[in-house]
Amino acid sequence: MTLKIYLSGEIHTDWRERIIDGSKGLDVTFSSPVTDHAASDDCGVAILGAEDNKFWHDHKGAKVNAIRTRHEIETADIVVVRFGEKYKQWNAAFDAGYASALGKPMIVLSMPEHQHALKEVHAAALAVTEEPEQVVDILRYTLTGTLPS
Amino acid sequence: MTLKIYLSGEIHTDWRERIIDGSKGLDVTFSSPVTDHAASDDCGVAILGAEDNKFWHDHKGAKVNAIRTRHEIETADIVVVRFGEKYKQWNAAFDAGYASALGKPMIVLSMPEHQHALKEVHAAALAVTEEPEQVVDILRYTLTGTLPS
Amino acid sequence: MTLKIYLSGEIHTDWRERIIDGSKGLDVTFSSPVTDHAASDDCGVAILGAEDNKFWHDHKGAKVNAIRTRHEIETADIVVVRFGEKYKQWNAAFDAGYASALGKPMIVLSMPEHQHALKEVHAAALAVTEEPEQVVDILRYTLTGTLPS
Amino acid sequence: MTLKIYLSGEIHTDWRERIIDGSKGLDVTFSSPVTDHAASDDCGVAILGAEDNKFWHDHKGAKVNAIRTRHEIETADIVVVRFGEKYKQWNAAFDAGYASALGKPMIVLSMPEHQHALKEVHAAALAVTEEPEQVVDILRYTLTGTLPS
Amino acid sequence: MTLKIYLSGEIHTDWRERIIDGSKGLDVTFSSPVTDHAASDDCGVAILGAEDNKFWHDHKGAKVNAIRTRHEIETADIVVVRFGEKYKQWNAAFDAGYASALGKPMIVLSMPEHQHALKEVHAAALAVTEEPEQVVDILRYTLTGTLPS
Amino acid sequence: MTLKIYLSGEIHTDWRERIIDGSKGLDVTFSSPVTDHAASDDCGVAILGAEDNKFWHDHKGAKVNAIRTRHEIETADIVVVRFGEKYKQWNAAFDAGYASALGKPMIVLSMPEHQHALKEVHAAALAVTEEPEQVVDILRYTLTGTLPS
Amino acid sequence: MTLKIYLSGEIHTDWRERIIDGSKGLDVTFSSPVTDHAASDDCGVAILGAEDNKFWHDHKGAKVNAIRTRHEIETADIVVVRFGEKYKQWNAAFDAGYASALGKPMIVLSMPEHQHALKEVHAAALAVTEEPEQVVDILRYTLTGTLPS
Amino acid sequence: MTLKIYLSGEIHTDWRERIIDGSKGLDVTFSSPVTDHAASDDCGVAILGAEDNKFWHDHKGAKVNAIRTRHEIETADIVVVRFGEKYKQWNAAFDAGYASALGKPMIVLSMPEHQHALKEVHAAALAVTEEPEQVVDILRYTLTGTLPS
Repeated sequence: MTLKIYLSGEIHTDWRERIIDGSKGLDVTFSSPVTDHAASDDCGVAILGAEDNKFWHDHKGAKVNAIRTRHEIETADIVVVRFGEKYKQWNAAFDAGYASALGKPMIVLSMPEHQHALKEVHAAALAVTEEPEQVVDILRYTLTGTLPS
Repeated sequence: MTLKIYLSGEIHTDWRERIIDGSKGLDVTFSSPVTDHAASDDCGVAILGAEDNKFWHDHKGAKVNAIRTRHEIETADIVVVRFGEKYKQWNAAFDAGYASALGKPMIVLSMPEHQHALKEVHAAALAVTEEPEQVVDILRYTLTGTLPS
Repeated sequence: MTLKIYLSGEIHTDWRERIIDGSKGLDVTFSSPVTDHAASDDCGVAILGAEDNKFWHDHKGAKVNAIRTRHEIETADIVVVRFGEKYKQWNAAFDAGYASALGKPMIVLSMPEHQHALKEVHAAALAVTEEPEQVVDILRYTLTGTLPS
Repeated sequence: MTLKIYLSGEIHTDWRERIIDGSKGLDVTFSSPVTDHAASDDCGVAILGAEDNKFWHDHKGAKVNAIRTRHEIETADIVVVRFGEKYKQWNAAFDAGYASALGKPMIVLSMPEHQHALKEVHAAALAVTEEPEQVVDILRYTLTGTLPS
Repeated sequence: MTLKIYLSGEIHTDWRERIIDGSKGLDVTFSSPVTDHAASDDCGVAILGAEDNKFWHDHKGAKVNAIRTRHEIETADIVVVRFGEKYKQWNAAFDAGYASALGKPMIVLSMPEHQHALKEVHAAALAVTEEPEQVVDILRYTLTGTLPS
Repeated sequence: MTLKIYLSGEIHTDWRERIIDGSKGLDVTFSSPVTDHAASDDCGVAILGAEDNKFWHDHKGAKVNAIRTRHEIETADIVVVRFGEKYKQWNAAFDAGYASALGKPMIVLSMPEHQHALKEVHAAALAVTEEPEQVVDILRYTLTGTLPS
Repeated sequence: MTLKIYLSGEIHTDWRERIIDGSKGLDVTFSSPVTDHAASDDCGVAILGAEDNKFWHDHKGAKVNAIRTRHEIETADIVVVRFGEKYKQWNAAFDAGYASALGKPMIVLSMPEHQHALKEVHAAALAVTEEPEQVVDILRYTLTGTLPS
Repeated sequence: MTLKIYLSGEIHTDWRERIIDGSKGLDVTFSSPVTDHAASDDCGVAILGAEDNKFWHDHKGAKVNAIRTRHEIETADIVVVRFGEKYKQWNAAFDAGYASALGKPMIVLSMPEHQHALKEVHAAALAVTEEPEQVVDILRYTLTGTLPS
């Protein structure tokens, strides 16, 4: 059993690295959205031409990014969605809804102060974690049946 | 052609009423989540028994509400998702993702100041509106081919 | 919104009647497997001819019953699965798994003493109840947004 | 042709080993749920935090286990479901229903005394066996066309 | 519960009438392919223009007929497939395979002398009958739970 | 049997009227895209606000129109696609591909001079016609089994 | 591009060998049902135990064979169905219908004298051939774009 | 992440080569329809036998080509559709519709003068480009997150 994990959501802290580092030795592959914030924001106009209107600037970028994110969610075995401290993070919640409708097993990585606001997302998840290491523990258990000692 | 419209999202302003009132005479039916905030928050424990832990209190409620919302999204012809002024509104973004993955035509009703934060959601929508009356105009045009004069 | 409810499982107590009676006035329709135990056991051989071997006697019957039950689960909006006091009730758990794989919202009606044995089934349900009246309360809330007073 | 076989159900006897050993030389891979009973029961709280209430203790565990089992059933070519001597085994029947709804070829491995209680599960199977060696014979025949001599 | 039944196969005996007559009073609707043999053979060229080559004559007709038959199978709740005494009847077996792949409950109405040749089709059916009245009995039982007295 | 027919393609001749008039008395309903050319071109900006850039002007309109056309194709029983004399008509071919991928029975109404250019579209159709009356003949035959006299 | 080809149907002539031999050097893999007639007929009882009744003898065998054939059709890129000179060959037509409903590209290999009887099957095929070498030509063209010289 | 890209549409300019050459070093594979115009037009009759009627000549060819193109679209991760200067190019628009209905991420490569005629196709795309190098830029960004400098 090899598992392909998609790491969706917040791009400002090191949670992805902690999961990837912690999973060394496990039979997993990871993928993510483009996490370079500037590139992600400007990819549409950088490739397809500038826009005066901010709406279309963002629209082109969001669609170019969707080529990657849609593919990654649809081919993932497990989707991990991280809600961080800042910003609206509606794209994370959108990914969570998208993954749920496809029946993907979902692990949410969120903060206690967001518990009430995330209750619908949590209810659709198979696990709700607060630390990246818990995600690693779940991956290890899922692949090997071993619990943290 | 009869269209079934699901009105997802914010429950604190009169946007649903404005859409429903404006659509008088059109061949549409509307459905919504339960919009009584207190009932929506407490439905789980009110029916299934109290919980000490707020997480499970919310969890039970979110799942009971999902019986309705999941059914309504899956049977809708068009999903309208409203992002209002306040709160995290992750459930609205979750619904948008869920509807998108099912291939439902989606209309977003949002505020200009949220444009950048909603760019991924907007990119998945077939129309982005700022006023409920624009949603009505789209429904009227979709059903009758008539544009606002 | 009209909901079609499939009532799967135990056929020896009055739980179906209590749900149906309690739901008077709600916009629901109910369906069930054939609940006449003798007819359900013998339908295969009664229509298709006798069998010496008990395995094929049962096999024919189970397949004839599946014409009804498969159709009812697949067209249901909500599946309620009842686990009663007696018997192995593997058909109820089979229906629960079948409904889950189809993404049907599921309500389980079970007994506290079966909690541990049913944990996988409960984990796939949107609500776990102990009394038929709780199922009615969920249906009423789902359809009208009204909680029990 | 390589076949991926999921071995669902009872975890207290050596049936999995007998199938895996007997299949040496065949082009098959096997997967199973976590078969360490204690780990399987406690995985939720061990990773995600303790619960006072047994229901939530089990709920968390069942969902964490579902990450693995759901993935394994959905990617399997053939699902073998074993019903053993003891316990309610509703999770086995649930897996059988889940696999059936997905259209997975299913082989049941059960005991003669459970024949009547399993008739609906048997009716959904492509083969009903009583010994692990019969499962091996089916796999060998399916892969090589060779019957037991 | 209303059931829509598609009656596929042989068009030279009165089996359809016997089923339809016998089902008076049951909540069923029936549909069939065009059973006027000459019209069915010539519909393609009669509407779309003559063909010199018999292959294309038949090809056009088979495709025009497929507009009806494909729609009817896909919207049926139950598919009954009749294998009669004469002809190759490959279209009946084709319909049986098509219905099976769609997961439609299938009842086969065939003759004892064809048992061995139909074993794969029978294995995919939920009931194998020899008389139209047995099909009626199954429909009545499925709808009302009543067995033939 | 009632059939829902979607009439896709050319909006400059009276082919829709000829089909609808000719089908009087048949159990069919028809739907179409918005056929008011000006409204169809401008619906996006008329409802959602003007655009300087023609690309976005058209983009908004095409998406608003897709709310209707996507719904109509997906709920149609038969899709008729008309290729007329003028214009590129890529939207007609797009609809044909969309309908084909959904497995919808498709009837093409085209001109002899386009035969070679339409060969891939024709190959995906169940009937290729040159006159609207042939479409009516097919609908009548499909519904009633009656051929033109 | 690698293609997986399933070779369904007649087991009494060398058509499979001619296709496989002719395809040397092409990037294809082939699979077939079990073509040992005796093994195919008796696999059910040989593994699962004898039956007095020929119907159940055949039933068990047909289901065991379905484990292989269903898997092979569902994972094939192209399905070739051969109708030979003798027997009813309903299983071949059943496979053709099954493959069609799954949207598999189908090539039929049949005899001119069966043209009329196979018209519905032919209408669902992307190519109708009379010699195995034509099937090889199609595979070579599909993979390399090269026509027979 | 490896991406499989299908390059649909125009076969008379070097756009495919420019994309393939530009993508050197990226983890992509490319596939195309048969781009030898003569072979593509005549494949049907060359393999399956001559036809007097041009319609059937083309019909046979279009279906043989569909074996390849349908497989390639259905297994692609991204579909690029090129609209060139000449011809009706309805097959390109057909492929675009087919890919859209399957939910494939689509990149359109078209000319400014076709903007209005392609508005429905553009509206279904995740990116609209004018030069093959822009397609390469999107693939590089999608795979590596790197923007053109």
